[in-house]
Amino acid sequence: MFNFQVTSVCKTTNARTGVFHTSHGPVETPRFMPVGTLGTIKGLTSSQIKKTGASMILSNTFHLHLQPGEKIIKEAGGIHKFMNWDKPILTDSGGYQVFSLSKLNKISDEGVGFKNPRDGSYIFLSPEKVIEIQMDIGADVAMAFDHCPPHTSTENDIEDSLRRTHLWLEKCVDSHSRKDQALFGIVQGGKYHNLRAISANFVNSFDLPGIAVGGVSVGEQINEIHNVINFLPKFLPLNKPRYLMGIGSLNEISLAISQGFDLFDCVLPTRLGRHGTALFNDQRWNIRNARFKNDFAPIDKTCSCETCKNHSRAYIHHLIRNDEILGLTLISLHNIAHMIRFTNAISKAIKDNCFTIDFAPWKRSSIAHHTW
Amino acid sequence: MFNFQVTSVCKTTNARTGVFHTSHGPVETPRFMPVGTLGTIKGLTSSQIKKTGASMILSNTFHLHLQPGEKIIKEAGGIHKFMNWDKPILTDSGGYQVFSLSKLNKISDEGVGFKNPRDGSYIFLSPEKVIEIQMDIGADVAMAFDHCPPHTSTENDIEDSLRRTHLWLEKCVDSHSRKDQALFGIVQGGKYHNLRAISANFVNSFDLPGIAVGGVSVGEQINEIHNVINFLPKFLPLNKPRYLMGIGSLNEISLAISQGFDLFDCVLPTRLGRHGTALFNDQRWNIRNARFKNDFAPIDKTCSCETCKNHSRAYIHHLIRNDEILGLTLISLHNIAHMIRFTNAISKAIKDNCFTIDFAPWKRSSIAHHTW
Repeated sequence: MFNFQVTSVCKTTNARTGVFHTSHGPVETPRFMPVGTLGTIKGLTSSQIKKTGASMILSNTFHLHLQPGEKIIKEAGGIHKFMNWDKPILTDSGGYQVFSLSKLNKISDEGVGFKNPRDGSYIFLSPEKVIEIQMDIGADVAMAFDHCPPHTSTENDIEDSLRRTHLWLEKCVDSHSRKDQALFGIVQGGKYHNLRAISANFVNSFDLPGIAVGGVSVGEQINEIHNVINFLPKFLPLNKPRYLMGIGSLNEISLAISQGFDLFDCVLPTRLGRHGTALFNDQRWNIRNARFKNDFAPIDKTCSCETCKNHSRAYIHHLIRNDEILGLTLISLHNIAHMIRFTNAISKAIKDNCFTIDFAPWKRSSIAHHTW
Repeated sequence: MFNFQVTSVCKTTNARTGVFHTSHGPVETPRFMPVGTLGTIKGLTSSQIKKTGASMILSNTFHLHLQPGEKIIKEAGGIHKFMNWDKPILTDSGGYQVFSLSKLNKISDEGVGFKNPRDGSYIFLSPEKVIEIQMDIGADVAMAFDHCPPHTSTENDIEDSLRRTHLWLEKCVDSHSRKDQALFGIVQGGKYHNLRAISANFVNSFDLPGIAVGGVSVGEQINEIHNVINFLPKFLPLNKPRYLMGIGSLNEISLAISQGFDLFDCVLPTRLGRHGTALFNDQRWNIRNARFKNDFAPIDKTCSCETCKNHSRAYIHHLIRNDEILGLTLISLHNIAHMIRFTNAISKAIKDNCFTIDFAPWKRSSIAHHTW
């Protein structure tokens, strides 16, 4: 259980393929994980999600704690039964949400007190409480509670929050007791290499079944994201799945995989879908645009998702223009399938020795064209 | 093509089962037809609709003419390809919508001029134009353009509109030329038996492949609806499918089938779905209600729809409470499946000689309990 096997390594980069074993089956890596914030990937049924090729999906502890509350989910028999997803699930710890979405009242080494954005009530989340909530939710992977400061914080502030993140990790490890659930630690440290290295070494020392890198893609410049992706992996264990949190752009996923990251998540495919924007290769197309009005081709004729097999751009354009919710369902479905197709193509390319950092298999000139 | 075979008759009522043959396969009757106003049954994909047991579905000529326009649909290869539904489709003529939804400017024997509710532009619909639009849309069944006056109109006004409806029917028949599309006439006449009888005889005289009864359930008292259902069938041909337009309540469907009606449509299952209301037997349940918060049973444990097989009331309650669109998709899916299950149960009961006017097969005491 929670064993990670590296199944192949790239000859030219640090990329690898692997299998992470969970209570709900294996997760083949590298892998994009779609996000179902409230126990639902917006607009999609479980069987539609399954058809995108999704394996592990994400849900948000912070949101589920507020609504419907972890006790309901526990009573339902856990998150898998509650949302009808029998493959692996990962819950984030809520750290990012607590610090980005809510009005903070008080941060201390004990935890964070804040106002419930839904009803103004006072909520206190400690690392122990966050683990208790995640054990009740019952995902396959729980995340440690971390202090995720703004990317504009001073080095002193980042250092202070990092000390707290590490203290909380100890508390999380101590209070976590579900044998059928893996706990991943989170490396923080902002853009500061010395802090990132300290954090990676500290988190490593717990020998948890997986390791995540947080505090990336939180508003900082793209070159700072690249710096973390390029610098950190040498401090991360090779025999554990490495999860780069919140990254959903193909360029950065490709770069991160080339440096040895394995798992990715992002709300982007469904958020874009809700706004009528479809992914095509590395582009974003606004299907609302008049040029799609009588374009009877599928979004992507090389894509084998349910949307592209069954529906035209013209039909989806019509739906989106008329605020028909089927439109956002169909685009979200395609967008998720597109992201998973991308990481699957990378897997195949690693095995076939044709993976490159600037992976763009849709190009006829790409040596990995056959993987698309 | 467009042949209707009666396959069994009820021994105690005028109910019958039958098969109506179309270019896109057979429609077994009696049958509920879900409504996809804009070429989409709100929130459901074709494969989800198929799983409800739906056969013929409806779409609205008035709405499709405004958006995306029949030319786009024709260019797509017709409505079946446009919306990816390979089973039969019926388009209404827009008569009801023109008179109920739009600001009327002018009604004459030539047609109706009105303001486009979307952009204020002037639109003129003649019977010939409505047939041209429906031939472009390309459904299996087209409906004649009818003048559908308010139920509060005087007998004189109804008589006048009926004369026009009949004139328009002649024009519709003359201008309809698609061999792969059936044209149904519509009987009007409001609550006036003499007018209804005249209308039925007039529409019959064209010997079209099917006959519809319109102007029912347009705001009048329930006993007036019952009067039409009880009085009219003796004037309708036995060897044609008889379509009672816009009726979606189980009581009235059951009564109408007992009088020999075969086809029904209503927006209710999806409209209720969008408001979080689920059908259960002959009841309507508001799933938003707090009593469902930790109710882990399916909406209806005797229902075999995808929603009831896979999801609990508590989960759907959670989705609806949080405005998650999957909630309305799941309830709409169940509600359509419920309506189709109901007319399927009646079919079985007719064949098994246990159909009754007050059909309620969910009751253990019902002699038709085995059909549920």
